[in-house]
Amino acid sequence: MTHYKLTLAYDGTKFAGYQIQPRQRTVQGVLEKALGKMAKVDHIHVDGSGRTDSGVHALGQVISFDYPGNIPERSMMLAMNSLMPLDVEILKAEIVPATFHARYSAKGKRYVYRVARGRFTDPFNRLYTGHYPYPLDLDRIREALKDVVGTHDFTSFAASGGVIEDKVRTIYEATVQDDPAHNEIRFEFYGNGFLYNMVRILVATLLEIGNGRRAVHDFQRLYQVKDRQQARGTAPASGLYLKEVYY
Amino acid sequence: MTHYKLTLAYDGTKFAGYQIQPRQRTVQGVLEKALGKMAKVDHIHVDGSGRTDSGVHALGQVISFDYPGNIPERSMMLAMNSLMPLDVEILKAEIVPATFHARYSAKGKRYVYRVARGRFTDPFNRLYTGHYPYPLDLDRIREALKDVVGTHDFTSFAASGGVIEDKVRTIYEATVQDDPAHNEIRFEFYGNGFLYNMVRILVATLLEIGNGRRAVHDFQRLYQVKDRQQARGTAPASGLYLKEVYY
Repeated sequence: MTHYKLTLAYDGTKFAGYQIQPRQRTVQGVLEKALGKMAKVDHIHVDGSGRTDSGVHALGQVISFDYPGNIPERSMMLAMNSLMPLDVEILKAEIVPATFHARYSAKGKRYVYRVARGRFTDPFNRLYTGHYPYPLDLDRIREALKDVVGTHDFTSFAASGGVIEDKVRTIYEATVQDDPAHNEIRFEFYGNGFLYNMVRILVATLLEIGNGRRAVHDFQRLYQVKDRQQARGTAPASGLYLKEVYY
Repeated sequence: MTHYKLTLAYDGTKFAGYQIQPRQRTVQGVLEKALGKMAKVDHIHVDGSGRTDSGVHALGQVISFDYPGNIPERSMMLAMNSLMPLDVEILKAEIVPATFHARYSAKGKRYVYRVARGRFTDPFNRLYTGHYPYPLDLDRIREALKDVVGTHDFTSFAASGGVIEDKVRTIYEATVQDDPAHNEIRFEFYGNGFLYNMVRILVATLLEIGNGRRAVHDFQRLYQVKDRQQARGTAPASGLYLKEVYY
């Protein structure tokens, strides 16, 4: 048995999310089947750093698993890529101590959210951005992002359906970058953990603040009320990227 | 009756090409149906500047048509966009003289071809580039591109199936740009006309020259032999973009 850590990118468009489900095309399903093929077994169970929803992309998702045999890191990377569909790319394979676990060992995560600002949907970006055609005041968004950084109870920003009791998370960095050449803005969030749909709800709330439909410091109120109904929107999955997992 | 010229972009991935075909999703079909809906008729015939194949994209395809009514240019643009699927965007609508014809009035076209150079297919670029993981000497390609510019008989570079007798075309510009930041090279071809699959065959031949599998000045020989079998490859549709049509 050898214990591996793999870092991978995928286009989430044609997946029913990361997590394995019967009769659905999932990232986990594709990975477990490919490893099974290599090892001549039905499948090999992999642990991911966390789920991504259908349509959500990854630039640096991490998985870990036990493999029955000892394949050099580079050979593992090449073999897995030869078995991957074109919408998944294995970026790195590492042999790690048996104690490493993609989810439980994770110390933090970084997400990117891309917002396309054109009046109409750009045909080439429709699957890779969220679309927000309304005016935005980036100074208001930057002011609001200061309220996002820090340790807060994010109950108002967690999709119902989550089973996690403790909704307190720490956000180390929350930024927005303007890219006028591509008529796009890009959010980046780095924190010790994120609740279900949290980034997409944060982005939807930030866009409402930028558009003037919400007070600049509404986050302070939303942390207090702990009510998902008050942070109404959820930005589309297509704009969200799991960029990096920190260990 | 008002005569319109529309400029549009589309992601060709989910279309069976530009040209209308029964029981297939085509760009022309989507446009004719939307115009019919506006005019409350079954469909309105449109003329395109030329066909693009399945998977080929457009940044500036042009169509022309007669519309039974007089809609201001901007309203036509907005109305059509509201009826377009997300993979088509109308960039511009103009009222033009009745003599304007998207195909017959065209004086030239510009195509772009994007080649991804990573060892593996980038999941986010698989539908928007051709993939060439082998070594390339760009100086050899630049030297060969000098042979592409000018007036030549492109018989060796036309897919069989074309019905056009005269295979002589003039290429005004043929360039390659290196984009190491995106691990990509980009070809651009501007000419008075292009035969069926011509750009994709030119690119495949240029890549073979860049890889050293063909003589630098093989184009000179290929113009002479007038034999499609000798310019073997056709680069994938996914990398090709109709960028602009000149009138």
